[in-house]
Amino acid sequence: MNRLDTRDSDFTRQFHALHDWDANLDDQVEGRVREIVHAVRDRGDAALREFTERFDGLSTASAADLEIPRTALEQALNSLEPLQRAALEEAAQRIRAYHKHQRSESWSFSEDDGTRLGQRILPLSRVGIYVPGGKAAYPSSVLMNAIPAQVAGVQEIIMVVPTPKGQVNSWVLAAAAIAGVHRVFCVGGAQAVAALAYGTETVPAVDKIVGPGNIYVATAKRMVFGRVGIDMIAGPSEILVISDGSAPAEWLAWDLLSQAEHDEIAQSIFISWDDAHIDAVVSAVDQALSVLDRAPIAGKSWADRGAVIRVRDRAEACEVANRVAAEHLELAVADPESWLPDIHNAGAIFMGIHSCEALGDYVAGPNHVLPTGGSARFSSPLGVYDFVKRSSLIQASAAGANTLGQLAERLALGEGLTAHARSAACRVTDRQK
Amino acid sequence: MNRLDTRDSDFTRQFHALHDWDANLDDQVEGRVREIVHAVRDRGDAALREFTERFDGLSTASAADLEIPRTALEQALNSLEPLQRAALEEAAQRIRAYHKHQRSESWSFSEDDGTRLGQRILPLSRVGIYVPGGKAAYPSSVLMNAIPAQVAGVQEIIMVVPTPKGQVNSWVLAAAAIAGVHRVFCVGGAQAVAALAYGTETVPAVDKIVGPGNIYVATAKRMVFGRVGIDMIAGPSEILVISDGSAPAEWLAWDLLSQAEHDEIAQSIFISWDDAHIDAVVSAVDQALSVLDRAPIAGKSWADRGAVIRVRDRAEACEVANRVAAEHLELAVADPESWLPDIHNAGAIFMGIHSCEALGDYVAGPNHVLPTGGSARFSSPLGVYDFVKRSSLIQASAAGANTLGQLAERLALGEGLTAHARSAACRVTDRQK
Repeated sequence: MNRLDTRDSDFTRQFHALHDWDANLDDQVEGRVREIVHAVRDRGDAALREFTERFDGLSTASAADLEIPRTALEQALNSLEPLQRAALEEAAQRIRAYHKHQRSESWSFSEDDGTRLGQRILPLSRVGIYVPGGKAAYPSSVLMNAIPAQVAGVQEIIMVVPTPKGQVNSWVLAAAAIAGVHRVFCVGGAQAVAALAYGTETVPAVDKIVGPGNIYVATAKRMVFGRVGIDMIAGPSEILVISDGSAPAEWLAWDLLSQAEHDEIAQSIFISWDDAHIDAVVSAVDQALSVLDRAPIAGKSWADRGAVIRVRDRAEACEVANRVAAEHLELAVADPESWLPDIHNAGAIFMGIHSCEALGDYVAGPNHVLPTGGSARFSSPLGVYDFVKRSSLIQASAAGANTLGQLAERLALGEGLTAHARSAACRVTDRQK
Repeated sequence: MNRLDTRDSDFTRQFHALHDWDANLDDQVEGRVREIVHAVRDRGDAALREFTERFDGLSTASAADLEIPRTALEQALNSLEPLQRAALEEAAQRIRAYHKHQRSESWSFSEDDGTRLGQRILPLSRVGIYVPGGKAAYPSSVLMNAIPAQVAGVQEIIMVVPTPKGQVNSWVLAAAAIAGVHRVFCVGGAQAVAALAYGTETVPAVDKIVGPGNIYVATAKRMVFGRVGIDMIAGPSEILVISDGSAPAEWLAWDLLSQAEHDEIAQSIFISWDDAHIDAVVSAVDQALSVLDRAPIAGKSWADRGAVIRVRDRAEACEVANRVAAEHLELAVADPESWLPDIHNAGAIFMGIHSCEALGDYVAGPNHVLPTGGSARFSSPLGVYDFVKRSSLIQASAAGANTLGQLAERLALGEGLTAHARSAACRVTDRQK
């Protein structure tokens, strides 16, 4: 684990080394992904089946085998034990209730001359949800991606999930049933993204693709962006915990490790101005690691990418937090509300010592798909707003066209666009002197 | 111009040929852009100045010369003739008034056990606006990109505009002054995008880059996406006019050409079920072309990419419009309101014969930065919502953490994430039997 101290003259360099990296430009991955995307675009199902066999070890007798039938989803749901099923359904219900607050309405207004202006908001018609498969197949991810689409009113939700060697995760299928997914295909990787973007004989083309994935999935999403919409490019998960010592060190250690156990390149950062508290948390992490199932992963993440930052005071803690722009920010402090005005960048803010990230990951209601890698500076949690599109509405009255037409004509002539000017001028009936 | 008829057996193929193309994957441009982006990222101002000299023929004595001082903006504004200035200011005011309707408020709610959930909405801190220079330098584009950022409350709006051989467009600078742009740099192309994304010694790094540009600009934006936010990738402009014959053919001809005059690859499509009306519009376009200043551009656009689609009826007109998902859709019909429920995909809908696209391009108020190339299926006009970011707020009470913690623990264990389970379990005080 990296120990930083804002009082060190070298702090800025160390901080950048910790925080900055640029996963944007990997030429080799890009070349391989481009081949896959082109092949699926050009050869459809045939290419999709080949890649599924090559990368997932799943051979299909026909293209129809790429789809997991609806009955399998219902079966999976019925196969859960009652407590598990209830937990999943309770989580879904809370997520749905929270996301309903994100719906927005079309609006319009009229001007004195009868001209009407507005904006219409409609759900997307068809979206694709990428769900990682294999060891990291998470039912919570299905809920978090599909429910906002469902709340937005999307007509058709298509899920893709790789099933390596045919291994199907019944929790994931059950979650798809609960979240209102319409169709599920057992494909993954760049080939699944390409299939959703371009459509194949079997997989329908969608309007937008969302959901997390590895570097191949992320690169493919970036490549098809424009052809379809995509959500943000997800990077490794991060947590930043600011503590004033209100919470027991052990709680905070588990919070830090709940991030670290995701991935060896996940990042957990702990910030405080209290040296004794910092030491206590560092010990608690070591102790927790000694009993943790996923210690090999979490330990490596904490050792390589984890950090403890000793700051001078609360103001510096906020400054560092804003520069990190963490995906998850825990304000493990006594008076979290008073901190909010100083926190500008964070995907989700967990306020107070009872609000650990794990609650948000599963059941609190807000989305767990959050901007990573500092992108909380400019992007937002996945939400209902990601599954709608807006159209401007412009209905000029004859009188409105007369007035506005003269203004538009003048500006168009200033830009040298005479057809624009003529188009506006046609509608001018009573020219101002 | 292409003539299509939905009654032809070959219609679908012809329609796809007209409509579908994939500008996404151009390896050669990508390679050149990558070099430029890497150079600016790694060498900052030095590389930026070299590229500006090479591509724009503008040599600078020092990096400071890359900035156009604020006084130059004010001077440009004062140099406009009064009527021109008034038109620009009136347009700005209308755009501002419209966009104020797009602001949204933070929200939160409390649950019975004291747990509070919500979402906070804040403006982005610093954004970059790309404005094309040279022959296609449009002040209206400055207003349309900067005003939504200003209405959102963005603290610093940075504009980049190439000034080939030092040629500055004073309209563009005046528009920057009106629209509240804070700083302007005379750089363009992929190098300007890289400078905004990574920052140089002179150009500050921004959180998001918006604005139209050529294939190099678009490719660079796609490349830095993730490092910074970007708006949609703009393609060539399109208009689709559906007419029931209510408007004079001449009006519609100018409307079609107002799109065609933008660019040789702009696309104008006319749809009707009335053969005589179609013929009249086609003749009117030919006649209008004979007097149009930009006839070489507009003529080529109309000849190569323009189209007239004869449909059977209104239902088919809507079906084609939804498949095109046009940037601009004119419903030149007597009862546009009754059409709206059947129109699902369009960037902006111009309702009725008085509502020509040119009004929307300049003065009506809605944004003229609109989804192109069919992306209206999943994306929206540029708006205030593009200049804000959201943070989820999760404040669990002790009682809430007790209930939610038990649920989260169960789900986390189902996913094999034991640190998540422990983190939630810490906060459980009163375990359900």
